[in-house]
Amino acid sequence: MNKQQNILIIGAGLCGALLALRLGQRGYNITLIEMRPDLRKVDISEGRSINLAISDRGIKAMKLVGIQNKVKSLCIPMLGRMIHDTDGNTFLSKYSGRDHEYISSVSRQDLTALLMNEAEALENVTLIFNKKCKHVDFENKQATFIDYATKAVSTIQADVIFGTDGAGSSLRKSYYSERKFLFNFSQNFLKYGYKELSILPAENNAYKTEKNALHIWPRGDFMLIALPNLDGSFTVTLFLSYDQGSFNFSNLTTPEMVTRFFEKEFPDALKLMPHLIDDFFNNPTSPLGTIKCSPWHYQDHTLLMGDAAHAIAPFYGQGMNASFEDVVVLDALIENHKGNWETIFKTFSKTRKKDTDAIADLAIDNFLEMKEHVSDPIFQEKRKLEIALEKEFPNKYASKYALVTFNENIGYHEAMTQGRAQDKAILNLLKHKYISFDDDLKSVLKIIKQDTKKIIDKDNLLKNIEEESI
Amino acid sequence: MNKQQNILIIGAGLCGALLALRLGQRGYNITLIEMRPDLRKVDISEGRSINLAISDRGIKAMKLVGIQNKVKSLCIPMLGRMIHDTDGNTFLSKYSGRDHEYISSVSRQDLTALLMNEAEALENVTLIFNKKCKHVDFENKQATFIDYATKAVSTIQADVIFGTDGAGSSLRKSYYSERKFLFNFSQNFLKYGYKELSILPAENNAYKTEKNALHIWPRGDFMLIALPNLDGSFTVTLFLSYDQGSFNFSNLTTPEMVTRFFEKEFPDALKLMPHLIDDFFNNPTSPLGTIKCSPWHYQDHTLLMGDAAHAIAPFYGQGMNASFEDVVVLDALIENHKGNWETIFKTFSKTRKKDTDAIADLAIDNFLEMKEHVSDPIFQEKRKLEIALEKEFPNKYASKYALVTFNENIGYHEAMTQGRAQDKAILNLLKHKYISFDDDLKSVLKIIKQDTKKIIDKDNLLKNIEEESI
Repeated sequence: MNKQQNILIIGAGLCGALLALRLGQRGYNITLIEMRPDLRKVDISEGRSINLAISDRGIKAMKLVGIQNKVKSLCIPMLGRMIHDTDGNTFLSKYSGRDHEYISSVSRQDLTALLMNEAEALENVTLIFNKKCKHVDFENKQATFIDYATKAVSTIQADVIFGTDGAGSSLRKSYYSERKFLFNFSQNFLKYGYKELSILPAENNAYKTEKNALHIWPRGDFMLIALPNLDGSFTVTLFLSYDQGSFNFSNLTTPEMVTRFFEKEFPDALKLMPHLIDDFFNNPTSPLGTIKCSPWHYQDHTLLMGDAAHAIAPFYGQGMNASFEDVVVLDALIENHKGNWETIFKTFSKTRKKDTDAIADLAIDNFLEMKEHVSDPIFQEKRKLEIALEKEFPNKYASKYALVTFNENIGYHEAMTQGRAQDKAILNLLKHKYISFDDDLKSVLKIIKQDTKKIIDKDNLLKNIEEESI
Repeated sequence: MNKQQNILIIGAGLCGALLALRLGQRGYNITLIEMRPDLRKVDISEGRSINLAISDRGIKAMKLVGIQNKVKSLCIPMLGRMIHDTDGNTFLSKYSGRDHEYISSVSRQDLTALLMNEAEALENVTLIFNKKCKHVDFENKQATFIDYATKAVSTIQADVIFGTDGAGSSLRKSYYSERKFLFNFSQNFLKYGYKELSILPAENNAYKTEKNALHIWPRGDFMLIALPNLDGSFTVTLFLSYDQGSFNFSNLTTPEMVTRFFEKEFPDALKLMPHLIDDFFNNPTSPLGTIKCSPWHYQDHTLLMGDAAHAIAPFYGQGMNASFEDVVVLDALIENHKGNWETIFKTFSKTRKKDTDAIADLAIDNFLEMKEHVSDPIFQEKRKLEIALEKEFPNKYASKYALVTFNENIGYHEAMTQGRAQDKAILNLLKHKYISFDDDLKSVLKIIKQDTKKIIDKDNLLKNIEEESI
């Protein structure tokens, strides 16, 4: 393996910074280049702290680069969903029956800064800021950048180029526009947008509502969520239709209407949000979309990773975790195919895609679950039962949520297949009262396992029949 | 309705020329602009006549503009698929049990020229050639063109702009790149490419093989087809994997290998193709893809139609027919919503898409059917049975093929739903020997109808359950 190889990584977000750190640890010469200013020096979030949920797949990547303890100090554990009804009543729906299974709120900015610091501490890693990639000549392994301040254009040549430049990836745009190979691509937007709001800290950085939970106000057609920050604040996100329903982003045009909407739907949240109107009208409404494409690589020259390859909706809290897992998967391939970038890239592009396609679809599942089902009695019964099963049989049962979020040693696709079948089985069994929470748990587990297997077998059979009978 | 409105149509292919003719007949001032030279004056097909299959949906559009008789004189009826096995044996599998149901081979060039002549005969229609659209400023209803010869750049302003500029549509690219609204888009390529070849006429423009059929050499992983031309020749198309299987486009690199491939797989065709090697190495290998997007319109300014909105694989022979049907559907909306372009465009974009999505999926179905199943005994038994049913009960039974191809008064989506369920029912009944060709046809029809209904009901139920249980 030629350790003197020069690697260019375009985009120093979470995925790019982690990749730079890991490949730097492996001894490559790394240039990590970012279009925005250095977020460790300039506040680029315009005063708002945007947070994310990190879970076991992400933690596994932190362990790979040896910074899990540093990351832990940035994390606020969230043990479950705190559901808020329209009367302001709340109850906690735990994420798992196993006490060590929870997700954590972490600041995007703090975590990115940590990864940058760790990468920059390596002498073979160089970070460059304020240079926007205009185009990647992937045939000749050259990328062209424009400097934000001077407008100067420069070109960087490398042995290998990674595009970790997010949903608007310039490497992906170059694949698309140059038409030098057959590039499959899709972008699909939801009819919902989102807007970030905030709950400010109480005195002495105290939390105005439960700190260790992900708060949800599920309302069927829309929802509000809130995640805690280290400074006592919460970042609140409103997910709402652009133009459907009584209230939507198109008709919430005056402070009076916004206040009326929150009074009716989120009265307890409104009390904690004296800045609601300012937030609402100062902050942008942003779209929610899914991007899929293939192949991700071009020969042994270039590779897309993270959101650049597979941007997903945020509802499973797995966007960052999936991008971090990309690095773990790639790292294992680098280990197995020392320096053979074409094999590494081809294998990565081929085997990883079924998992990132799965988490994209699961994210849409979870949107429906969060905005509708978490407040539905039969769904709550299911969750109660699953938590009991996980507590009673910690090694024998894991819910779909647990499979996706806490089982980093199986892929998203397997988690989806098993998890969806379980959900179907349990909801059906509860609906027809074949099982209930008061039954013997051991026999309930047995029935669920049987029905789940039947559903998976039937789905496989159907797939085969359909392939036969087209 | 303001008849003095100026309408710009970008792209004078089949769809654009038909649209210009129809809107011209309605009295609008039409500018139809095309990037290529006038195909009535310059031979732009490089000596090869490329033909298409026209069927009832296309014919309906020809009737709308009153040129069905002129079109008929360009057509060669194809009554069924002439299947060729590897020993050179052939048999005809008819398209329908009703004698008036067949498809016709027609030259793309002749048909486009006819539509152009008819449009140009109207004083309110102007045709412009050799101007390539670079960009559409859809907010300001302006399109920018570059002249091929002079390189001069010009801008055309219009009240309404249509993009009928094919799979590489510049209007669609402007929607995508300007990001002024949420534009869903996907492009997906098959792992197969195609190459056009030819069978030249015998003496006195005689046909070297059966004239009134679509010839197919189905070989499982690949296939060859041939459609007749008026001059006695056939246009032959090879569909083959880019890089899978013993023979593929990547490894057919020498005349010897191409000859060996044809000797082994298509010996009877090879005898009719003394120019095979020249054709093979002179003609390009082209990709097969599907493009879907939405919305197709922007306010009351612009609308995508035809391949620009929904490019599909060619295997159902419905690409042109679907584009022509677009014009029929749009024309009915224009009739109903006199001059209200926003309503017309919105309704078109919303209601038409389920049908063009369906024909895109059906085209992939038919690829599998053509390359694999037409030579399968159980598939042949099914076709024999369906033909008998169509003959015996002409008003009571129509196969999937007939629903899609000959039933222009139901949409593609309905044809797909009904047709797929029928196929599944019949194949299942034949496989388990619940019905046979020797049974009483009346009772066979009854069983098929029952099972088809069961499958459709179950699919609907499954859809509901899945929506419930996610």
